[in-house]
Amino acid sequence: MAVFNDTFNATERLLAEHRSVRRFAEREVDLATLERILECGMRASNTGNMQMYSVVVTRDKERLKSLGALHYGQCATAPVMLTVCADVERYHRWCQLRGAGVCYDNFLWYLSGVIDASLCAQNICVAAESEGLGFCYLGTVLYNAKAIAELLKLPKGVSPVITLALGYPEGETTLSERLPLDAVVHYEEYRADSDADIERQHRMREEFPFNRRMVEENGVENLAKLFTEKRYPVDANRAISRALLDEITRSGFMNNE
Amino acid sequence: MAVFNDTFNATERLLAEHRSVRRFAEREVDLATLERILECGMRASNTGNMQMYSVVVTRDKERLKSLGALHYGQCATAPVMLTVCADVERYHRWCQLRGAGVCYDNFLWYLSGVIDASLCAQNICVAAESEGLGFCYLGTVLYNAKAIAELLKLPKGVSPVITLALGYPEGETTLSERLPLDAVVHYEEYRADSDADIERQHRMREEFPFNRRMVEENGVENLAKLFTEKRYPVDANRAISRALLDEITRSGFMNNE
Repeated sequence: MAVFNDTFNATERLLAEHRSVRRFAEREVDLATLERILECGMRASNTGNMQMYSVVVTRDKERLKSLGALHYGQCATAPVMLTVCADVERYHRWCQLRGAGVCYDNFLWYLSGVIDASLCAQNICVAAESEGLGFCYLGTVLYNAKAIAELLKLPKGVSPVITLALGYPEGETTLSERLPLDAVVHYEEYRADSDADIERQHRMREEFPFNRRMVEENGVENLAKLFTEKRYPVDANRAISRALLDEITRSGFMNNE
Repeated sequence: MAVFNDTFNATERLLAEHRSVRRFAEREVDLATLERILECGMRASNTGNMQMYSVVVTRDKERLKSLGALHYGQCATAPVMLTVCADVERYHRWCQLRGAGVCYDNFLWYLSGVIDASLCAQNICVAAESEGLGFCYLGTVLYNAKAIAELLKLPKGVSPVITLALGYPEGETTLSERLPLDAVVHYEEYRADSDADIERQHRMREEFPFNRRMVEENGVENLAKLFTEKRYPVDANRAISRALLDEITRSGFMNNE
C-alpha cells in the first residue's frame, strides 16, 4: 500500500511509514540513545514553555513486569517503558520558592499537561523511529491511572497520560489502514456528510484483511460491533471515565471554583 | 546555544531545532503541500485506529479574521489556521449505520480524542518544519472552545483541542530555553527533588535574556510571578476550567453514568 509519493521528503516518508511495534528484540536501548530521543521530546512546543510534564523511564526487569501487568501484559518484551505524565508539581514548587501562589491546580492545566505530554511523546516517537527503534502507545495507561501513579510513586500534581513501550523491533510489522484524508479534513467549516459519505469513508477499513479476520475470529456481525461489543464496550468505558475523573481529582487538578 | 551534538541524526536535528513562528511571510501554502503534511498527521498512532479527531482548515481571509479574533489576534499574519478537534461524531454515525450502539460519549473518549488530536498535530508540525514552514500552537483554543466550535460549525461530539497557526516564517526566530533533561526525566520512580534541585533546574530559565526582559517590562518581582500574576492568574484559570467542562458536557463527552 503506497502511503506516500515522490513529493514526500525524507522526514515525511519516515512519518508516513510509521508502524506500531508490539514485539521487541532482546537488545537493550543504550542510555545515550534514550537520552537523545528524550531531548527531542523536550524540544516540542508546550504551553507557555512551562513544561508541565514529566517522563518516568522503566528499565528494571522487575519493575517492567509490575508495570506490564497494569497494561495487561501488552508488549511484554519491551526493554523500556516510558510513562509521560501531566505534571504541575515541579512548577508549583518553583512558584512557592519564589513567593508566587499555587495557580495551576485546575482542569485547564490538566488538559494543557495532557496536550503537552502528548506532543513531547510524539517527538520521542519520531526520533525513536529515526534511530531504528519501534514503539507502541498503550492506551491502557488511562484504565489503570491510579495504580500506575502508585507504582511510579507519583506525587500529587502528577498524573500518567501516555505509556510508550519502546525497543528494537522483532519480526514483521504491518502498516495500518487509515481513513481517506477527506474523511478527517474539513475546509472552512465542519462538513455535513451524508450516510453514503460515511459508508464510503469506512469501506476500505471494513475490507482491510486484518480487520476482516478480527471480525471472523471474534464472531461478531461487523467491524463496528467488534469495537462496541468486544474491544471498548460502553459499561467499561463509563466505569473507566469515572475512575479517571476520580484520579484527576485525587491528583489535584480539579480545584475549579 | 547548542541543543544537539554530533550524535543527533538529521531527523533529530530537525526536532531539536524547532522554533515557534509567530510572524509569517505573505506567501500562500499550496494545497498539495498542505495535504502532504496533513497525511503525515494522519499516520500518527491513535487509539484503536479509530481516528477520533478531525482537522478544520481555515484559509479564507474573512474567516481567518473571525477565528483570529477568538485567539486575541495572535499570529494574525498566518495564511492558514488548523483547528484539530476531538471527534466521536464520525465514528458514532458509522456505528449507527452498522447497528452498533453509541459507546464513546464519555470522558475516556474525550481524553483519548485529545491525545490522538495532539499526536496528529505534532506529526503535522514536524512535517511542516521539514517543508520550511513554521507554526505556533495557540493555547487560546481552550479559552474560547465554545465560540470556536460555533464559528467552525462543529456538531455535537466534536470539540476543538488544538489550533495551529501555519505559514512561511518572516524575520528572525529564537530557540526557546528548556529545563535540563534531568529535571523532567525520572528513572524507575518519581524522584523527590530538594528545594535546591528545583532552584538549580530553573536557574537557566530565570537567567535567559528574553525572560529577564519580560520580567522587567511587566514590572513584576520575578519570573514565577510573571506567570502567576500576569500571564495565567488563578481566577482566570479557574473560570476557563469551568467553561471547558461546560463545553465538554455540551459537546456530549460527559455521559459517564
